[in-house]
Amino acid sequence: MGSLINGVNGQHALTFIKMKHDFASLKVNQNRLVDAIHSSSEYGSAHRYGDDATETGMARLSLNDADKQVRDWFKVNVESLGCVYSVDQMGNQFAIRPGKNSTASPVMMGSHLDTQPTGGRYDGILGVNAGLEVLKVLHEHKFESEGSIGLVNWTNEEGARFPMMAVASGVWAEAVPLNKAWNLAEVSASEDGAKKTMKEELERIGYLGKQKASYKEFPFAAHFELHIEQGPILEMEKRKIGVVEGAQAFKWFEITVRGRDTHAGTTPMNARMDSMLCAAKLIVQANKIAKEHDGLATTGILNMQPGSVNTMAHTVTFTLDIRHKSDSELSEIEKQCRAQFQYIAENDSEKGCKLEWNELVNSPAVNFHEDCIAAVRDSAIEVCEDLPQTSNDGQLWKPMISGAGHDSCYTSRRCPTSMIFTVTKDGVSHNPREYCSPEDCALGAQTLLGAVLRYDRLRAEHGNLQ
Amino acid sequence: MGSLINGVNGQHALTFIKMKHDFASLKVNQNRLVDAIHSSSEYGSAHRYGDDATETGMARLSLNDADKQVRDWFKVNVESLGCVYSVDQMGNQFAIRPGKNSTASPVMMGSHLDTQPTGGRYDGILGVNAGLEVLKVLHEHKFESEGSIGLVNWTNEEGARFPMMAVASGVWAEAVPLNKAWNLAEVSASEDGAKKTMKEELERIGYLGKQKASYKEFPFAAHFELHIEQGPILEMEKRKIGVVEGAQAFKWFEITVRGRDTHAGTTPMNARMDSMLCAAKLIVQANKIAKEHDGLATTGILNMQPGSVNTMAHTVTFTLDIRHKSDSELSEIEKQCRAQFQYIAENDSEKGCKLEWNELVNSPAVNFHEDCIAAVRDSAIEVCEDLPQTSNDGQLWKPMISGAGHDSCYTSRRCPTSMIFTVTKDGVSHNPREYCSPEDCALGAQTLLGAVLRYDRLRAEHGNLQ
Repeated sequence: MGSLINGVNGQHALTFIKMKHDFASLKVNQNRLVDAIHSSSEYGSAHRYGDDATETGMARLSLNDADKQVRDWFKVNVESLGCVYSVDQMGNQFAIRPGKNSTASPVMMGSHLDTQPTGGRYDGILGVNAGLEVLKVLHEHKFESEGSIGLVNWTNEEGARFPMMAVASGVWAEAVPLNKAWNLAEVSASEDGAKKTMKEELERIGYLGKQKASYKEFPFAAHFELHIEQGPILEMEKRKIGVVEGAQAFKWFEITVRGRDTHAGTTPMNARMDSMLCAAKLIVQANKIAKEHDGLATTGILNMQPGSVNTMAHTVTFTLDIRHKSDSELSEIEKQCRAQFQYIAENDSEKGCKLEWNELVNSPAVNFHEDCIAAVRDSAIEVCEDLPQTSNDGQLWKPMISGAGHDSCYTSRRCPTSMIFTVTKDGVSHNPREYCSPEDCALGAQTLLGAVLRYDRLRAEHGNLQ
Repeated sequence: MGSLINGVNGQHALTFIKMKHDFASLKVNQNRLVDAIHSSSEYGSAHRYGDDATETGMARLSLNDADKQVRDWFKVNVESLGCVYSVDQMGNQFAIRPGKNSTASPVMMGSHLDTQPTGGRYDGILGVNAGLEVLKVLHEHKFESEGSIGLVNWTNEEGARFPMMAVASGVWAEAVPLNKAWNLAEVSASEDGAKKTMKEELERIGYLGKQKASYKEFPFAAHFELHIEQGPILEMEKRKIGVVEGAQAFKWFEITVRGRDTHAGTTPMNARMDSMLCAAKLIVQANKIAKEHDGLATTGILNMQPGSVNTMAHTVTFTLDIRHKSDSELSEIEKQCRAQFQYIAENDSEKGCKLEWNELVNSPAVNFHEDCIAAVRDSAIEVCEDLPQTSNDGQLWKPMISGAGHDSCYTSRRCPTSMIFTVTKDGVSHNPREYCSPEDCALGAQTLLGAVLRYDRLRAEHGNLQ
């Protein structure tokens, strides 16, 4: 995708847009935004940690009953704002507020309403609610955008219940085949003991839409996503807004270690094929390698069989999530893990263990679009300019690379995309205590509003509303 | 318990017994023994690994349906041999073949018929079947022993389903309170989703006896247990029989590591409280410490929460089984683990993790009774004397310390006890491929027969049949 502004760098063009924009009076309503975040979090709230009604985390796993409820809530809200509403085959919910030109592709805001099993009230939820708040502001001001502006709630972004993150935006981007997504089975069996598929659960809760899940069927002019940073950097540097220029590369593996299940009391140490001990060494080593390369490594799931105190496991299976902002450095981390794991399994596990690698996800580094980045940056500059200067260098926004994967990584393959980050208390995310202050939520939503309207104006001025 | 032979060492006394014994013609029937092992293993066979009907392992968890079936089989078999049969409150099954004096306490043979979830056909099963074969030999020869001779099938020796090993002999020995044992809940929930207690399952399968489970109610003159070695030593040294003089000390712990569940992509390595990484380091360290002390360490169960690929675990719980033949060395291993685990959790886990230790089992080193050891040794010498000499030193039997815990460790607290070990192929146990050859099974059973009759004669000659 080329820049809309030929021969002019984004900074320059957006300064131009900023100077003549007529939407400076459009302000998000902080209280209304925060109320909406917490109202929608009634569906699936869990893991109470304090006395206040809002001091809980969330357990709104994709397509569970609470997720159905919040989807119904989403539909009612966007329809009350006069949006055109639709659902596609992956349960993605789209709301479009028509612009002066209502036939051109919409500029979309989007994020997700599903959470981790022990998730918080902001990851994804802030992004959808901020988009909803922008639509409310446009609606109450009867603002006429150049093209249409919309909001999408993407299904199963977390990948926590159905183990492929951002799978539904992946189908929309035609990066993930529809049937592969539909057939994903949940990680843990439901109460009736069966592992349901995504398609079964979409049907069960009434969100298996007929609209084809594809960017060809439902193209976007652009995609903007507001999200909590989920890390400690903005807070540590006392800044307010992250202007997200891309996302780090990551890969997910499932690694199986096969040993032998022998008796814990009668098998001498040097006669063992202890798959748990071997797996422990591999996990320690992966972390060491990642740290040496300034990357990340995490094991979030580990299962062992047969599972008896006085019997070694014959099989241990664990996940390995490795990340780096550079594709080539990530490859190097993977290469060293593969080589050193093999060495440990063969030579540092007594009688030896066998290894199998299964690649679950391969998400290369993502570079967002310069026009969208410029729209976000210019909006952030405006939002920050009246705030007290707290950072060492006097700048309250910062260009950042996303540590996590997001739906925006998939949309970025099919339309200009960027993201906005807000401060995350203590950098804690995927945790009930995840927190973004009301002020920071509103600053993020205001930045989103400014970025979307800038981009809307930009594409109109460059004749991109056919 | 003092020696029956005052002022004379066991070796000398038993040589005396050996010279005048009149039961040299009593020989176990190898084919009948092996047939019985495999017939009884029809109940609960699982994990096929070869084409032959006997090439499977076992999944006969204590008090499951297959365990009920093999208990019924045990009852029918011992009653057909004219034994007096009874069941106690823990489901322990007793069969007594009356001797000339049928009022004195019986000399018992015993082991167990429950197995690990992926167990084999010999652990426990050989011991009960060898005892049954001894009773068959005595029956067919109408042999009149001095006192009564019996056989016991102990409940839940493995501790695999109800997590306390040898719990039912523990109750008999009054080392474990009855209600504690009855209230033990199974490790994994049954098909209906509920975790059944031992008492519920004893009732369900009809094996909750009325007879008090106590050595006071049902005293033994002695307890002899034949068991596969479950380790590689006899096979490596090309010997045939282990004369077991005691059992190593062991402790079981459940260790909980608490960290923080934050996002795998956005939490810098140095800002983490990664409980899985910490647990992995602890497991590696425990194994290192155990090896340095010539002891053993094993982690057989590990669970982590919440269990999501891209979220660190906030909690990891794992078991640690440590063993040593010396109580003081085991204490030293535990002490070093506690200190070094604490150091790792505080200083080598980035932002730190919290540890909790829960002691599940504390089984001190056991020294068996000199008279029983002598009876086994003398019987083993006789059994081995006509076999081809294969070991380096020309001796086919060997004094050994048991690596595993056994019901004999509890009986040893209340009556003279010893054990006999047989060769275990590749040292593999707690595994479907666990194997003891027909010849080795028969050599073990013959040694058991000789040991029991020697002890029966010994106590009669020393006036211990009041």
